[in-house]
Amino acid sequence: MNKYGFLGLGIMGNAMASNLLQAGFEVTVWNRTLEKCSSLVERGARLANTPREVAASCDITFAMLADPAAAMQVCFEADGVLSGIGDGRGYIDMSTVDGETSQAISVGIRDAGGRFLEAPVSGTKKPAEDGTLIILTAGDRSLYEEAVPAFEKMGKLFPFLGETGQGARMKLVVNMIMGGMMTAFCEGLSLGQKGGLDGQQIIEILMSGALANPMFAGKGPMILKGEFPTSFPLKHMQKDLRLAIALGDQLGQPLANAAAANETFKRARQLGLSEEDFAAVCKAID
Amino acid sequence: MNKYGFLGLGIMGNAMASNLLQAGFEVTVWNRTLEKCSSLVERGARLANTPREVAASCDITFAMLADPAAAMQVCFEADGVLSGIGDGRGYIDMSTVDGETSQAISVGIRDAGGRFLEAPVSGTKKPAEDGTLIILTAGDRSLYEEAVPAFEKMGKLFPFLGETGQGARMKLVVNMIMGGMMTAFCEGLSLGQKGGLDGQQIIEILMSGALANPMFAGKGPMILKGEFPTSFPLKHMQKDLRLAIALGDQLGQPLANAAAANETFKRARQLGLSEEDFAAVCKAID
Amino acid sequence: MNKYGFLGLGIMGNAMASNLLQAGFEVTVWNRTLEKCSSLVERGARLANTPREVAASCDITFAMLADPAAAMQVCFEADGVLSGIGDGRGYIDMSTVDGETSQAISVGIRDAGGRFLEAPVSGTKKPAEDGTLIILTAGDRSLYEEAVPAFEKMGKLFPFLGETGQGARMKLVVNMIMGGMMTAFCEGLSLGQKGGLDGQQIIEILMSGALANPMFAGKGPMILKGEFPTSFPLKHMQKDLRLAIALGDQLGQPLANAAAANETFKRARQLGLSEEDFAAVCKAID
Amino acid sequence: MNKYGFLGLGIMGNAMASNLLQAGFEVTVWNRTLEKCSSLVERGARLANTPREVAASCDITFAMLADPAAAMQVCFEADGVLSGIGDGRGYIDMSTVDGETSQAISVGIRDAGGRFLEAPVSGTKKPAEDGTLIILTAGDRSLYEEAVPAFEKMGKLFPFLGETGQGARMKLVVNMIMGGMMTAFCEGLSLGQKGGLDGQQIIEILMSGALANPMFAGKGPMILKGEFPTSFPLKHMQKDLRLAIALGDQLGQPLANAAAANETFKRARQLGLSEEDFAAVCKAID
Repeated sequence: MNKYGFLGLGIMGNAMASNLLQAGFEVTVWNRTLEKCSSLVERGARLANTPREVAASCDITFAMLADPAAAMQVCFEADGVLSGIGDGRGYIDMSTVDGETSQAISVGIRDAGGRFLEAPVSGTKKPAEDGTLIILTAGDRSLYEEAVPAFEKMGKLFPFLGETGQGARMKLVVNMIMGGMMTAFCEGLSLGQKGGLDGQQIIEILMSGALANPMFAGKGPMILKGEFPTSFPLKHMQKDLRLAIALGDQLGQPLANAAAANETFKRARQLGLSEEDFAAVCKAID
Repeated sequence: MNKYGFLGLGIMGNAMASNLLQAGFEVTVWNRTLEKCSSLVERGARLANTPREVAASCDITFAMLADPAAAMQVCFEADGVLSGIGDGRGYIDMSTVDGETSQAISVGIRDAGGRFLEAPVSGTKKPAEDGTLIILTAGDRSLYEEAVPAFEKMGKLFPFLGETGQGARMKLVVNMIMGGMMTAFCEGLSLGQKGGLDGQQIIEILMSGALANPMFAGKGPMILKGEFPTSFPLKHMQKDLRLAIALGDQLGQPLANAAAANETFKRARQLGLSEEDFAAVCKAID
Repeated sequence: MNKYGFLGLGIMGNAMASNLLQAGFEVTVWNRTLEKCSSLVERGARLANTPREVAASCDITFAMLADPAAAMQVCFEADGVLSGIGDGRGYIDMSTVDGETSQAISVGIRDAGGRFLEAPVSGTKKPAEDGTLIILTAGDRSLYEEAVPAFEKMGKLFPFLGETGQGARMKLVVNMIMGGMMTAFCEGLSLGQKGGLDGQQIIEILMSGALANPMFAGKGPMILKGEFPTSFPLKHMQKDLRLAIALGDQLGQPLANAAAANETFKRARQLGLSEEDFAAVCKAID
Repeated sequence: MNKYGFLGLGIMGNAMASNLLQAGFEVTVWNRTLEKCSSLVERGARLANTPREVAASCDITFAMLADPAAAMQVCFEADGVLSGIGDGRGYIDMSTVDGETSQAISVGIRDAGGRFLEAPVSGTKKPAEDGTLIILTAGDRSLYEEAVPAFEKMGKLFPFLGETGQGARMKLVVNMIMGGMMTAFCEGLSLGQKGGLDGQQIIEILMSGALANPMFAGKGPMILKGEFPTSFPLKHMQKDLRLAIALGDQLGQPLANAAAANETFKRARQLGLSEEDFAAVCKAID
């Protein structure tokens, strides 16, 4: 059985590492601020002092870090992952990073003799705790296969999508569809309400038929109340639409509907809604 | 307990009347071609010779007719519904008709002393059999309330939406959102596949997350196979988008995303896809 | 030489009839409020008491009326054009009316034994005075040919476009292009100014190159000043875009760019700009 | 009076340098392939062996090079402009280059002690010969003012637009408007022709009114004939639309109409029209 390492024990990482421990795996943990390790250590995790130590002593090291800068630092700093990884050991970065960062880490790990998998996740705290994340993996296939027993404890779906970069690409496709669904939803609500229909009834009817989906269920009441506590910031959605359209440009794929959605989100940014939840795009429509 | 009448025993009507009978209600049926009545009569339905006879002898008469012309004829012909309805009895037209037809029937019934409810349904054969239709009612509120015991046997949701016309309006809003979701879905699939992702994996990932919905589950495989057996014809979807946008024009509601979707469906019509299922819009995108 | 009649002596009609008189033609005039006839009568025009009198005594009667209702009344009222037109005499309606009105008048005139030409004009007061209007004619070809000597005095271009309705259709095409050019212009000005360029310089550069056109020259300064004295009301432009898109729907012609422009004009209407000049659409873009 | 240098004597450069010579200025020329210098030398131009020699011996050196790579090489190679420019002499690059290239050359020239102006031109062979180019200048204001006597011989308009980069930005704005006008024009032609109007008449009517512009006059007949000899390649127009939209994204300017035009041009690329003239976009619309 593999020995697993886990770097980065924020809300997500803690829940994910906890699921590995719970399943009976041997887990070595590290976090830049030590106190976040304590609950896992109490439950049997081994504690390491540096990312290097984790990478050197485990077959597969997982990372769940806050942002691209943290992901880079953990790899490339002195006593970072690269200095410990060699001998074909595996490194699986589950942080959400841009393509360039992912590519740089991939090359670094391989040059150091390791194997690399990008594995950004879809889902937040609850699915992390329940072990029902969606994990979009891409990179080294043999590493993917070795990691399956761990993925099974952390996620409900963990497709292997091809070479490094395809994980991020899949996320763009999903988010582009999400942006289009949201603008369609908001336009329908605005049209219906202007036409004398009750917003609550529109949502109930949608949720009873072929279009029913968790996003409409979750965001619909926010839109009717006009309150948008941020779960996924509007500016990030607009950025993903922009990147998806740029990808379409590069691949020769016209995207007339995504382009219209992007302009609607840009109008929302112009109205000062960048930091609100992306459902606030309804204010640019109504 | 009310006596119910049922006019029009096609695939849908037969299933719906059957559910009323099954529930123990007294049901009087009529159909222009007599043989379609036989199975219901065998199971205890009373047979009438004219729509007039049904309307005159039942507290509430339901109709489920093929198209606006049939809906008009059944009401306005000699021995039609109007000649039997008087005395505050109820007439509930569940056919899918345009606003003008609905309005004309509404006025006719009321002038003849009856009460009227429009009640177009969302759902096809299977939900009709299972009694899980979505019934969008509008018109006479007192009639709606009296009909609830019958609606409970035919549908899983039967909101009352206001004055005559609001049922059709709700259907437009739902279909407009459906058209927008379909174009977003097809653009995402095309972009992903051009970018080297597997179509089947894209659908699986969508179906595991917040965007999961029955339409993607049902239409996705059709799109991947490139076969489009018609369930909802593309030309009808484009017509509904056009009507929704016209409604937006009238109400002063900009609909930039629906307008883009409409143009994509128009391009599909231009490619000769009018009679195929509306999911065939993907051919105008790919 | 033909005897000409002229009905409707507002700003436009007065200038147009005056050009006919000036050219030496015999002109009989009528206007519902008599005083508007005086200057033309002083210069030699004959005065008639009713539209019927004009139509009965002239070979060709022109009309330039305020709106569809006035155009209908002048034809169909007692002592209207229909009662005097018979014997193959000609009636040329130069008012801007919708297709149904034009069709109704066309049928009425022909049933009364006359010949009909629709001839809406493009151009306002100055071109009317200068005899440089653009006259979009359609209907009876023989009447068109007989009217050429009169058209030569009123317009600089007067193409014959086919059967009744094609004149109005041409106007829709031109106005649809106009709406698209205006939104492109406004987006360019907004983008450039947000990017630190000077609006005046942008216009000068545009006016020196292949895109130079009288509309940019005329509307550009209005946009920079933010003042929009109404020459062509924004709501009429949006209506023409809507009608052009409806025509495209009917003919199977996708119009993705016109649809985007239409939504921008709808947004402008929503901002309360309906009665301002259509160049005020820039406020919905900026 | 200034001594002028001229680097790059292709079709454009030859015509431009010729106009300087014609006006009586002392002009020193250089071209990588020597024979292109001969006609100018016969007419009195001095010949130099390297860009360095030109830059070192002239007050102001103009360059009109084929592409960004040529523009970089002429500056940065051994015996390039940088090695001769010092002492506040001026370098004016009139080539069409991207912003990064322009920025790199600007920094290089200034670091070497010179002054820099970017000055991309709008117009092709004929305006170059006639001295009626539009020259979009940006960078060093004092250099601009000194160069005015030369600009007067080469162009009819030569606005100073601010700091380096604003020349390229102005060109993007103009081309974005051009793309929008072209799609509006093509949609109008397609709609009108499908509606039974004559394409030639549509163009004549447009050219008689407020929308008349040289581009419609030049491209209209190409579109009616369906032949598109390349003057400005379609792929470059689509690239400029993409860059303009990216600029809008950066500046927070929604551009719904430009986005629709961009998608139409992308569809044209997908149809294999990249290398044809940008008027061929009509094939993606019709």
